[in-house]
Amino acid sequence: MRLLFLGDVVGRSGRDALVRELPGLRAKLALDLVVVNGENASHGFGLAPDMARAFLAAGADVITLGNHAWDRREIIPYLEEERRVIRPINFPPGTPGQGAVVVEVPGNRRALVVNVMGRLFMDPLDDPFRAVQAELAKHKLGQTIQAAIIDVHAEATSEKQAFGHSFDGLVSLVVGTHTHVPTADHQILPGGTAYQTDAGMCGDYDSVIGMGKGGASLRFWRKMPGERLAPAEGEATLCGLFVETQDATGLARRAEPLRMGGRLSPIIPAA
Amino acid sequence: MRLLFLGDVVGRSGRDALVRELPGLRAKLALDLVVVNGENASHGFGLAPDMARAFLAAGADVITLGNHAWDRREIIPYLEEERRVIRPINFPPGTPGQGAVVVEVPGNRRALVVNVMGRLFMDPLDDPFRAVQAELAKHKLGQTIQAAIIDVHAEATSEKQAFGHSFDGLVSLVVGTHTHVPTADHQILPGGTAYQTDAGMCGDYDSVIGMGKGGASLRFWRKMPGERLAPAEGEATLCGLFVETQDATGLARRAEPLRMGGRLSPIIPAA
Amino acid sequence: MRLLFLGDVVGRSGRDALVRELPGLRAKLALDLVVVNGENASHGFGLAPDMARAFLAAGADVITLGNHAWDRREIIPYLEEERRVIRPINFPPGTPGQGAVVVEVPGNRRALVVNVMGRLFMDPLDDPFRAVQAELAKHKLGQTIQAAIIDVHAEATSEKQAFGHSFDGLVSLVVGTHTHVPTADHQILPGGTAYQTDAGMCGDYDSVIGMGKGGASLRFWRKMPGERLAPAEGEATLCGLFVETQDATGLARRAEPLRMGGRLSPIIPAA
Amino acid sequence: MRLLFLGDVVGRSGRDALVRELPGLRAKLALDLVVVNGENASHGFGLAPDMARAFLAAGADVITLGNHAWDRREIIPYLEEERRVIRPINFPPGTPGQGAVVVEVPGNRRALVVNVMGRLFMDPLDDPFRAVQAELAKHKLGQTIQAAIIDVHAEATSEKQAFGHSFDGLVSLVVGTHTHVPTADHQILPGGTAYQTDAGMCGDYDSVIGMGKGGASLRFWRKMPGERLAPAEGEATLCGLFVETQDATGLARRAEPLRMGGRLSPIIPAA
Ligand SMILES: [Fe+2]
Ligand SMILES: [Fe+2]
Ligand SMILES: [Fe+2]
Ligand SMILES: [Fe+2]
Ligand SMILES: [Fe+2]
Ligand SMILES: [Fe+2]
Ligand SMILES: [Fe+2]
Ligand SMILES: [Fe+2]
Repeated sequence: MRLLFLGDVVGRSGRDALVRELPGLRAKLALDLVVVNGENASHGFGLAPDMARAFLAAGADVITLGNHAWDRREIIPYLEEERRVIRPINFPPGTPGQGAVVVEVPGNRRALVVNVMGRLFMDPLDDPFRAVQAELAKHKLGQTIQAAIIDVHAEATSEKQAFGHSFDGLVSLVVGTHTHVPTADHQILPGGTAYQTDAGMCGDYDSVIGMGKGGASLRFWRKMPGERLAPAEGEATLCGLFVETQDATGLARRAEPLRMGGRLSPIIPAA
Repeated sequence: MRLLFLGDVVGRSGRDALVRELPGLRAKLALDLVVVNGENASHGFGLAPDMARAFLAAGADVITLGNHAWDRREIIPYLEEERRVIRPINFPPGTPGQGAVVVEVPGNRRALVVNVMGRLFMDPLDDPFRAVQAELAKHKLGQTIQAAIIDVHAEATSEKQAFGHSFDGLVSLVVGTHTHVPTADHQILPGGTAYQTDAGMCGDYDSVIGMGKGGASLRFWRKMPGERLAPAEGEATLCGLFVETQDATGLARRAEPLRMGGRLSPIIPAA
Repeated sequence: MRLLFLGDVVGRSGRDALVRELPGLRAKLALDLVVVNGENASHGFGLAPDMARAFLAAGADVITLGNHAWDRREIIPYLEEERRVIRPINFPPGTPGQGAVVVEVPGNRRALVVNVMGRLFMDPLDDPFRAVQAELAKHKLGQTIQAAIIDVHAEATSEKQAFGHSFDGLVSLVVGTHTHVPTADHQILPGGTAYQTDAGMCGDYDSVIGMGKGGASLRFWRKMPGERLAPAEGEATLCGLFVETQDATGLARRAEPLRMGGRLSPIIPAA
Repeated sequence: MRLLFLGDVVGRSGRDALVRELPGLRAKLALDLVVVNGENASHGFGLAPDMARAFLAAGADVITLGNHAWDRREIIPYLEEERRVIRPINFPPGTPGQGAVVVEVPGNRRALVVNVMGRLFMDPLDDPFRAVQAELAKHKLGQTIQAAIIDVHAEATSEKQAFGHSFDGLVSLVVGTHTHVPTADHQILPGGTAYQTDAGMCGDYDSVIGMGKGGASLRFWRKMPGERLAPAEGEATLCGLFVETQDATGLARRAEPLRMGGRLSPIIPAA
């Protein structure tokens, strides 16, 4: 299976780049599955249903979220009707929406996508490791599902790496989101799981994690609330990870970064 | 000026790779200045004076530290005698050692290196932004110094990016350390300052931030102290950033990542 | 000098109790000086100028603030015109308002009041210990000022106790605010400084730190934003500390809690 | 049922006071049940089995722990053999020991004691609210058990108060520990549950949370590790809460603080 994971889409700049480029990428890389983190699509805070629809129409198969999941309240009823948009699985029981979804992939294949949130330097949700373990127990990689992708929305590199190793050999891909900066540590772990600590955001990299650099920098100098932050408006870099898996095992044989447009050094996997 | 910054050296694996490869890199890349973060050299915790000596002998010009600065207490008297080893500048007055140093560079040039620690998700030291601003006020880039390098030892990508933008045009390089994962966002900011959110560690990337992956992962599953962690012992990847500056302005004209050895995708700047 | 310190006034319930009871308390206890923390007066978030005026009119001499200082933006210009309302002193230079004030006390006496914010589990402001030390260096207790009161707005008991001991013998009173619960550890430290870890709030104690208990409790069960919190509306308990000092030394000879009205066990210092 | 809860015993000073005074208190107050938090008994860090034995011999029925539960490793096998020593219930499955115990009380009665740890500003354990809810579902207050005591070992007043309200009417007592300072907000909540935000420590109150004040204060001034902290050695104040419940309902009809010895203002419930 050929899959692409794209990190947190931030604001209009990120949305525009995604919707413009995804159809072409999908064709060029012969993608079977595209997963996009959309938690910052709406002015940096949350995801509106119409944005989700636009991402799905442009070629996303699944949209994941994170700590900004609830910033746009309209998402709550939408999560019940659109199962391809998922929120972190380790919210407590009773939380709207789902934390995992199995989608059909051409060729009579199925892929599991799980969204989970870390706890180090973040809000204390349920145990993310046991939550993923419990979800995986419902499936059989290489049999009931041909691929499994875990979006670990977390701050600390240590927690994300512990996630990668804990599920190495059990899933196709463990990829981080939330820090809004792509890491250069893409690799296939010893057990066969593709891994990258953070996919990076799809947004303007002349910014502070996608938001206007002037106001966002000032917040570190002054310690009082300033103007409301707005996303930076320069051209976005799409950032993510391309992974090719073997259907029989669900494990990875290629893991290559994608960076396209905007300010970052470009790299596009060979078709 | 041609300079190389290498991120946190972790344990024996990192030390061995550094000492083995640095002389060759120095020659091959015609480096004028090498700065290495050494806070995790000693089994992951601190820097012993003999390790510092070995790094300097191998071609490091300046060694920076971080939150692990004091883990090896022998460093305290050593910091007084060896000014090329610096600790974060924003420790309170009275703290041993210095947070900045100016070193001579061949060609009658001088370079300022500053080490500073972030506060987001870290210990509350003095304001890192004002501390660096105060240090920079003592120098004149392009005149009294030909280059200025800031090692921002910090957890949060937002704080590091705010640092980059706050000092863009005022220094040659703002580079992050501490997360132990290289980021792929190396760039020259609009004002001419080279920037990368994290240089990445010099250590084994089949690990949890350089420490043995089994024990370190277990700490996220169990919530009680386990065995003492030890550094992973696989081959290290040297990770860092190569920057070429203009002496007249002190600003950057090239900024390229270096990853060498071990598990990460290799990249070495063209000579 | 006979002084009363009252902790964080929360919402209408707290404001009403304060304005209603303070004149009587002032007379009954023959108070020379009253200091009130007002950071939560406005629906739990901030202090509006008209509320400050009402507190001053009712008998407060100085109003302190805390992390909620800026929640009502109208306070910013007001802080410039009304010096008796102070915000934490360890905000960075350039922050509106002042962190300390000296007020005249009947009998040709003067009292210094300082507001300072802790950093443990809070936003990283400037070093609170050095900030207070610097302010105290401008005065001479028992000579230029007859009393000195420090409101340490902080979360952790350890930081507040360290404050007490660090300034024991140098000020009349170190009293904590911010946790909204009165502590029962009022005492005169060995050096002569009155101390209580937290003054407690002036608000409804059938609540979660003054806010409606239903919604506020739900936030711990559900991990998504709920309804906007509103202050609890039951009768407030006024909570604080009465201290009697010797003018010649500025040190304390009595330190007794005050709890009046509402649900908490009542205690009023003997006149 | 007449019960006494005593907060965190710190070091030799706390241990000595407890063992010396508890037999007399037990007799004088005609106590049916005594619960003591012992997490800091061993030089401030953990509880050694021989100390637990001494507390039980002196009249404690149950000993609770907290974040320092594992500081003395010998406690691990001991927790398996001595069920009256419990650790927070919301450690992940597989953690040694138990988080709750039912003990026999004279008069053919039974009491449930639960130890649970908060998450705000603490390590992210499992959800403390759901963990307690699940434990309570096994019992029927007033029928299978005549009393239920919850020791909420937590930092934030908000989380502890939310605990009190969430279980008001469902248990006899919700009492906090961990901050090492007694609060003055003892009350019976509207539903009949006795509540106090923190019981306070049994230790020397001329200290920083029970540890030597010089060294502990210095840690806030200097930001580097200093000498190893040791408990303060002055006379301890025993701090806790006396509660009288109705066996038929398990709810409280009296809740009064106890402070005895040392520096704090003394108060002992009337027999
Ligand atoms: Fe996020
Ligand atoms: Fe994000
Ligand atoms: Fe570090
Ligand atoms: Fe490090
Ligand atoms: Fe407050
Ligand atoms: Fe506050
Ligand atoms: Fe404790
Ligand atoms: Fe504790």
